[in-house]
Amino acid sequence: MDLSDLARQSGEWLRGTGPESDIVISTRIRLARNVAGHTFNTVANDDQKAEIAQIVAAAIKKCRMKDVMYVPLKEAARLDCLLLLERHLISKELATSDGERGVAFGRTEMRSIMVNEEDHLRSQVLRSGFQPEVAWDEVNQVDDQLAGKLDFAFHPQFGYLTACPTNVGTGMRVSIMLHLPALVALRQIDKVFSAVSKMNLAVRGLYGEGTHASGDFYQISNQVTLGKSEVQIIEDVKRVVPKIVSYERKTRETWVKDDPKSLEDKVWRAYGMLRAARRITSEETMDLLSAVRMGVNMEVIPDLEIRTVNELFIQSQPAHLQRIEGQELNDHDRDIARASFIRSRLGDGKN
Amino acid sequence: MDLSDLARQSGEWLRGTGPESDIVISTRIRLARNVAGHTFNTVANDDQKAEIAQIVAAAIKKCRMKDVMYVPLKEAARLDCLLLLERHLISKELATSDGERGVAFGRTEMRSIMVNEEDHLRSQVLRSGFQPEVAWDEVNQVDDQLAGKLDFAFHPQFGYLTACPTNVGTGMRVSIMLHLPALVALRQIDKVFSAVSKMNLAVRGLYGEGTHASGDFYQISNQVTLGKSEVQIIEDVKRVVPKIVSYERKTRETWVKDDPKSLEDKVWRAYGMLRAARRITSEETMDLLSAVRMGVNMEVIPDLEIRTVNELFIQSQPAHLQRIEGQELNDHDRDIARASFIRSRLGDGKN
Repeated sequence: MDLSDLARQSGEWLRGTGPESDIVISTRIRLARNVAGHTFNTVANDDQKAEIAQIVAAAIKKCRMKDVMYVPLKEAARLDCLLLLERHLISKELATSDGERGVAFGRTEMRSIMVNEEDHLRSQVLRSGFQPEVAWDEVNQVDDQLAGKLDFAFHPQFGYLTACPTNVGTGMRVSIMLHLPALVALRQIDKVFSAVSKMNLAVRGLYGEGTHASGDFYQISNQVTLGKSEVQIIEDVKRVVPKIVSYERKTRETWVKDDPKSLEDKVWRAYGMLRAARRITSEETMDLLSAVRMGVNMEVIPDLEIRTVNELFIQSQPAHLQRIEGQELNDHDRDIARASFIRSRLGDGKN
Repeated sequence: MDLSDLARQSGEWLRGTGPESDIVISTRIRLARNVAGHTFNTVANDDQKAEIAQIVAAAIKKCRMKDVMYVPLKEAARLDCLLLLERHLISKELATSDGERGVAFGRTEMRSIMVNEEDHLRSQVLRSGFQPEVAWDEVNQVDDQLAGKLDFAFHPQFGYLTACPTNVGTGMRVSIMLHLPALVALRQIDKVFSAVSKMNLAVRGLYGEGTHASGDFYQISNQVTLGKSEVQIIEDVKRVVPKIVSYERKTRETWVKDDPKSLEDKVWRAYGMLRAARRITSEETMDLLSAVRMGVNMEVIPDLEIRTVNELFIQSQPAHLQRIEGQELNDHDRDIARASFIRSRLGDGKN
């Protein structure tokens, strides 16, 4: 498969059809696993990593998962790695490291397995909207299949062993991507942060650890993997996320009630700007799309599909743009290509 | 005539059809005159002012100028005075002072005569584009007609006598309204200021003395009225203005050549914003219309008439908006009404 084809398609999880999908973009669960009897990646040499890549890729193949294919990344173009990162199929670490590594994923992009990230393998399921139980069922199935072919490093007292102690135990991270534009605009987001951190949950930006929360996107995820069962971790998330969702919704209602014109103005200007600009940075695009996304969900903008907006968040990223254009572009030309691509997706008014 | 009707029409001089009208909005010439044997307005009491108003209004009537009607302003609504100011039919001083005063103007609004401004009367001719000689011919005709009915204060050595010594002599001020967005954007405008001031010409904002140059509009006018004939003053202006026009044009060409996308981006974003905003201040409107006006003249935006843009500069002003809406509006509601009116004139894209 040519990775360039990916750029024009979008993952199923971007449909925006899941529960609470006006505010919850996606539910992601990943399980960190290592192959017993092999050195952890943190200290493994190139040969050991190559061996692991071979073992895990072979195991994935044997599982015969529907549509799933394995993409080795050692020789992959830098741009393809970034493309996979922008689609949330791989992590920043896997995209930017070198050495033997890869990722397996299916056509719908709801399942992926990273090989030789921090751990030997990390299975991930991504779902539209708030679906922690469905995601858990699915990733659990993937894990069971792989466990049938691989002997995972497991300790009877601690649970799954991982390269970093923060993942020991279940090896599970549940990440809920939330779109919280009203809480940001009306300066309530800090209250969410402090409440969330008291619950042993972490808040991160769009592309995980250490990334900026552009586009008003926030990832809420569990911090603790040890001493709690998978089901308990999911219960924690299920207790907290609906409260944040409801807080964002109430803030939107207050906004509409107190100052509807400022809301409409923000939404329509953002939409107008995206349809008018002749050059635009990725950062500004995220901010404007965020307002448009809220506007579509609040029925301020009619006749625009939420899927189109969700896709633009991904497709306006640098690697996607360059694959769509079919060439490497510098910052300047990328800003022009981005503006042009956005207009082609949103229409640009009467001209 | 009901002044409210004015708000939805526009003066002939806004057609944007005169010479150099891509850059020269208008040529205005006014002549300051006083009636001999009567106290200057600077020291006149209410009765004396009332007498002058009566004398001058009667003289205007006797001249039987086509379509010209006299509007007394003492009892006029504050909003009507502002409306006339926004249309450049009267000065800020006449709009905001009190006492007996008025203005006569014709249907096309190219001629007006202010009564009891700083001087007893000030005749003005306003023309689209750069037409100093035509404007001079016309204002001279008006002046001749009035001189047939009134005895003007005149001194054989100094010329026409005026309330303020800076107007003594010809009593003439030639004002050229220029639209200089490229010189402003590429930070060349200060060079124009310093060159112009060396030529004994003054630079002012959109509504004359002490007003801000919003919308990238600048009025160039003569400083000296004494010791030079009317024709010499016009020659001064004719020597300087084409140089500024050519400088603005060259700056636009350089911009297109060096960075066409930044120009297109500025123009289209401004147009997009005007068609999208749900509330907008007068100041932001002027700035955005300025970019749109340049875009139309540079053929970046097709299918938009320059007349529409010129009219919007006037009709989006506070008094016009309130007359169009048929009610007094506070700042907040005016910004909403302004955005709505602009969208109705420019269309708002696909929604």
